[in-house]
Amino acid sequence: MAADETDSTLAESGEFAVIDRLVRGRSQPASVTVGPGDDAAVVAAPDGRTVLCTDMLVQDRHFRLDWSSPHDVGRKAIAQNAADIEAMGARPTAYVVGFAAPADTRTADAVGLADGMWQEADSTGAGVVGGDMVRAPLWVISVAALGDLEGRRPVLRSGAEPGQRVAVCGELGRSAAGYALWDNGIKGFDGLRRRHLVPEPPYGQGRVAAQAGATSMIDVSDGLLADLAHIATASGVYIDLAGTALAGDVDAVADAARALGSDPWQWVLGGGEDHALVATFTAAPPPGWRVIGEVAQADGAPRVTVDGAEWGGAAGWQSY
Amino acid sequence: MAADETDSTLAESGEFAVIDRLVRGRSQPASVTVGPGDDAAVVAAPDGRTVLCTDMLVQDRHFRLDWSSPHDVGRKAIAQNAADIEAMGARPTAYVVGFAAPADTRTADAVGLADGMWQEADSTGAGVVGGDMVRAPLWVISVAALGDLEGRRPVLRSGAEPGQRVAVCGELGRSAAGYALWDNGIKGFDGLRRRHLVPEPPYGQGRVAAQAGATSMIDVSDGLLADLAHIATASGVYIDLAGTALAGDVDAVADAARALGSDPWQWVLGGGEDHALVATFTAAPPPGWRVIGEVAQADGAPRVTVDGAEWGGAAGWQSY
Repeated sequence: MAADETDSTLAESGEFAVIDRLVRGRSQPASVTVGPGDDAAVVAAPDGRTVLCTDMLVQDRHFRLDWSSPHDVGRKAIAQNAADIEAMGARPTAYVVGFAAPADTRTADAVGLADGMWQEADSTGAGVVGGDMVRAPLWVISVAALGDLEGRRPVLRSGAEPGQRVAVCGELGRSAAGYALWDNGIKGFDGLRRRHLVPEPPYGQGRVAAQAGATSMIDVSDGLLADLAHIATASGVYIDLAGTALAGDVDAVADAARALGSDPWQWVLGGGEDHALVATFTAAPPPGWRVIGEVAQADGAPRVTVDGAEWGGAAGWQSY
Repeated sequence: MAADETDSTLAESGEFAVIDRLVRGRSQPASVTVGPGDDAAVVAAPDGRTVLCTDMLVQDRHFRLDWSSPHDVGRKAIAQNAADIEAMGARPTAYVVGFAAPADTRTADAVGLADGMWQEADSTGAGVVGGDMVRAPLWVISVAALGDLEGRRPVLRSGAEPGQRVAVCGELGRSAAGYALWDNGIKGFDGLRRRHLVPEPPYGQGRVAAQAGATSMIDVSDGLLADLAHIATASGVYIDLAGTALAGDVDAVADAARALGSDPWQWVLGGGEDHALVATFTAAPPPGWRVIGEVAQADGAPRVTVDGAEWGGAAGWQSY
């Protein structure tokens, strides 16, 4: 198959030949006892518990193949699952992938997707250990991720308490800025446009936060305010952010906002998909984390404010 | 939301309200430490290893909503993943679900799907511990399953050796017969038509086979010959089936075959989706399993024959 791989389609290559091509020669971490090729994989879980999550991406809803290369899509699909594992204070150990695509999909594009997945999985220290390929009218990619708590308790959304500090690790607003640039056909701002296609979650920092005593944590997938609202609701608290603490993120997207005539705060407060980690701490957060607000007693319904006021823009993404 | 649930759509209800409705009041096994509602779930893995697999179903490719109720689709999606866990000799412990659907999907149909999933998960002794809901032009359901080996070694496809017996547990040919009946609009044969919509894998028998020393195992998802060919190839052996040993399965679909003018052997040997378990044993298989053939030395390429001869029909399903 190698010779005509660029020109052949999934239908021409055949399911089993394609799967063989996607899997052949890939390496796995030592923790993977049984990798792809059997009914299921076997992965070490030395902690005696395992963390499990899943996220699904749909073509033209979560990615566009005229913006992203298949390699980008593969990286993004792994990254957003890895961020969920990190947000529990765990370390990713393995991924399985469901991939639906039209029969006339070029085999080379499926290989590109898999290459991106393996690259991103490797950067999280984990393996792609299995999957399923099916036919559909459009690309749908579903990843499930496993994680290892390494003996720590999981960091839930429900542990925030009044008096604690809110801190973030990673970028805010970049993906939303990048999306707006793509969507309006604005060239330049390569870093922001790139970040929308492939997020860069702060790998390893979920564990760092857990070790530093994080009391609650979530990854910013829907938007900072929306995701902190999940913590506020689960913990029954009120969260107030300090606008000045977010000035660096606003500055990073300010030029793009000017070019588009947009409000950079909307991207920083309401934009998702950067997969930064946001957590609460009783003491100062660990290096690499910056304090952006504080937890207070809920006076009424749990909510999130900026400098004591409700934010007037859209708080975040909903699927429907 | 409860009052107008039957009439509302996913878009009208909103993502978070729908998820709350799908998750509310569900019970979880004791092994689930953290269930739905956080970034990820936490599931006990007392064995120190975990088994992981995934399978994806696409509307009009793997199910039709004019044949199956959403509840049926939910049961099937869980069942086919559970069968993969069983085929490793493990016990299912948890499932996560990705569900893509159009915005105008009735919320009641999403609830039906979830009810079917929870029912089937419960019948395998495991919980649905998380998921993701996204918008797409058609239904796509992706399930990932976790399993517990309970201290046993995993039963792989590669362990069959010459001289061993091939045995099966569960039904063969029923789902394929049911599909042909549906596809040709033939009424009656309710049991067969039902079995195509909801398979009944022999839950618990993967563990029984492993405890009885099964040397290799697979679930029949693509077709008996195709799946045994996976074992033959992975093990480097030749497998010969005894036609007489499959007479009971052929008899069970014979009337339907007559009604359709079809060959019942095609369904029994080439039909997938029944999710029977087929395994190899050095000694007599455990109760509930029936011997259907034997493993021999490969004389050339690994292959599967019936009464010493190549089967002339289609051996099984490929996705493209």
